[in-house]
Amino acid sequence: MYNFSFHIPTIIHFGKGTITHLEELKDYGKKVLLVYGGGSIKKNGIYDNAIKILKDAGLEILELSGVEPNPRIQTVREGVRICKEEKIDMVLAIGGGSTIDCAKVIAAGAKYDNDAWDLVLDGSKVNDALPIFDVLTLSATGTEMDPFAVISDLTKNEKWGTGSKYMIPTMSVLDPEYTYSVSKKQTAAGTADMMSHTMENYFSMEEADCQKFMAEGLLRTMIKNGPVALNEPDNYEARANLMWAGTNAINGIVGDGCSPAWCIHPMEHELSAFYDITHGEGLAILTPAWMEHILNDDTAPKFADFARNVWGFEGNDDYELAHKGIDALKKFFFETMGIPANLRAVGITDDKNFEIMAKKACEGSKGSFAALSEKDIIEIFKAAF
Amino acid sequence: MYNFSFHIPTIIHFGKGTITHLEELKDYGKKVLLVYGGGSIKKNGIYDNAIKILKDAGLEILELSGVEPNPRIQTVREGVRICKEEKIDMVLAIGGGSTIDCAKVIAAGAKYDNDAWDLVLDGSKVNDALPIFDVLTLSATGTEMDPFAVISDLTKNEKWGTGSKYMIPTMSVLDPEYTYSVSKKQTAAGTADMMSHTMENYFSMEEADCQKFMAEGLLRTMIKNGPVALNEPDNYEARANLMWAGTNAINGIVGDGCSPAWCIHPMEHELSAFYDITHGEGLAILTPAWMEHILNDDTAPKFADFARNVWGFEGNDDYELAHKGIDALKKFFFETMGIPANLRAVGITDDKNFEIMAKKACEGSKGSFAALSEKDIIEIFKAAF
Repeated sequence: MYNFSFHIPTIIHFGKGTITHLEELKDYGKKVLLVYGGGSIKKNGIYDNAIKILKDAGLEILELSGVEPNPRIQTVREGVRICKEEKIDMVLAIGGGSTIDCAKVIAAGAKYDNDAWDLVLDGSKVNDALPIFDVLTLSATGTEMDPFAVISDLTKNEKWGTGSKYMIPTMSVLDPEYTYSVSKKQTAAGTADMMSHTMENYFSMEEADCQKFMAEGLLRTMIKNGPVALNEPDNYEARANLMWAGTNAINGIVGDGCSPAWCIHPMEHELSAFYDITHGEGLAILTPAWMEHILNDDTAPKFADFARNVWGFEGNDDYELAHKGIDALKKFFFETMGIPANLRAVGITDDKNFEIMAKKACEGSKGSFAALSEKDIIEIFKAAF
Repeated sequence: MYNFSFHIPTIIHFGKGTITHLEELKDYGKKVLLVYGGGSIKKNGIYDNAIKILKDAGLEILELSGVEPNPRIQTVREGVRICKEEKIDMVLAIGGGSTIDCAKVIAAGAKYDNDAWDLVLDGSKVNDALPIFDVLTLSATGTEMDPFAVISDLTKNEKWGTGSKYMIPTMSVLDPEYTYSVSKKQTAAGTADMMSHTMENYFSMEEADCQKFMAEGLLRTMIKNGPVALNEPDNYEARANLMWAGTNAINGIVGDGCSPAWCIHPMEHELSAFYDITHGEGLAILTPAWMEHILNDDTAPKFADFARNVWGFEGNDDYELAHKGIDALKKFFFETMGIPANLRAVGITDDKNFEIMAKKACEGSKGSFAALSEKDIIEIFKAAF
């Protein structure tokens, strides 16, 4: 096990009705920037509920709406401008991972003198941030309890992850009922995203039983509850299990000490940067292709563990088990969860950017489970095509 | 899943050599009370190492040594006296759970006007505490990342657990190498203690897949690594896995949202309060007796899950599986780990206190997995006798 430091001071309020805790924002100042996306929170009542709680607490509210899936640096800049001009005390995101990621970089940008894109390219430049709060409405990215944010500049086909301890949320409200209205498509993509986080942590050269065995538990949770949430959108237990599992997939508990680098995410970020596809769908499409590409004598035992402990297969032949596990994952993503099975199905109909995408992804995946060259990555893109 | 709030702001520094982080204590004041136990830290060099780091950081050090296993309120009072008289800024515990628990209540008592025993009986009376730091030398109680402490007044045969957010450590140093010198007896007892925490969380009427499946992963980690640490005391990976698993067993990740009350711990606290036995041994002795006592049509499916997912048994008959799982646990504790198999073997040779002990334990276990009457608890004590 590698050395690590774990420090996630986020206060999690989990469960029905916990949005009332927004009242506590009054302890952090007077003026709050409310950040949200396309307006679904106005339809399902969360917006009205939050506004009432904030106003009753005596807070002054400014708003930034319209945060995109794959949030844009242009939106971050607008938020930073408001924070600086209006002397905002804190940022509250209501939404999914995109909205919260956007709010995180706004909060950091508000305390930074130059362009916020610097902070996306280099998290170490974040030296302070406004307090960040969120109400999560989509179980997927785990941003509600981690230091990370992913921001895109689609004018340059750039999408990068950044991270800083200053961007860890101060308080996150996780009410599973707020995810009842999440569409089938986004429920499937969100489940794929949290499974990908868990698998990125699980498949690492550094074995660490504690992290690995807990990760297997998380994967089993997602595999069991994802389909339930898909078919019964208002099943509280399924939504609750996905929500807590998604958070624990990336808060460090199952990753710290064993997984220094990821590889599927860097590859998917290139897909999103060039084609603006849904992140979770891209991850689901790439993962089995990556698994089949790197399956060899070194990796087969790990894939056999995956087949046994996550999917419940039995046997002694590592390769046979490995294929069973990978096939089970494919079936889960592309049949059970209904995710498009290849890149063409999400609208990527040409391979002209694969080389430049592979070059960038190769840089980002250094140190991951199996070493990947640019050639490897192009082959994985092609296999997923 | 029940509603819950999760907030553990402890900074964990995990791994070889991370004791150097004690240098950061200088950010919290000038005077530190160093709390430790019987002096083993002087033999294995941790004491000298810590003193040098603290002195180099310009800190003034006062000491309280001799903290007992099952730490006494009398020792807490002495620590509180030093803190108040010497205007101590922070408390640093170096040791196992007993030493850290003692330090926690000292830190709280230093900010309390009356007798610290009040805080043991009622954690809600803790309204402040000095910053608490620790260097863990025994993987067992998980106190390094939780709000709890257990303190005894053996003059009254009283042993109670208390808890407060103010008693959550600010920073914990977890260096697996510091547990190399832990004896076989304490390694076994520590493994039993962390397994008991996990099982107390696992066996609850409220099912919650995420917490349960992760708990199964923790149990598998402990079952795999406990015997390795027993037989190869300086096996880093085994010690590291036990250390991180022990911490995660009780920091809320696998308990919050599903396990509002425990029952083995209240029973064991009575054994320790009356007979001053080793906590982990008492837990190991009571657990299978409790399992056999409460096995019925309602609980059998859960025990069958335990047998399948923790021990790897297969089958469809819940009762048969349940017995297999319980027998495997017995074999693990009493054969593999060498823990004394019954109360007589740890020196409890009479049953004269069982009634009064059962009365107190009954109160403490309300709301746990299976309702226990005083009569039930007496029968469990007798079965474990």
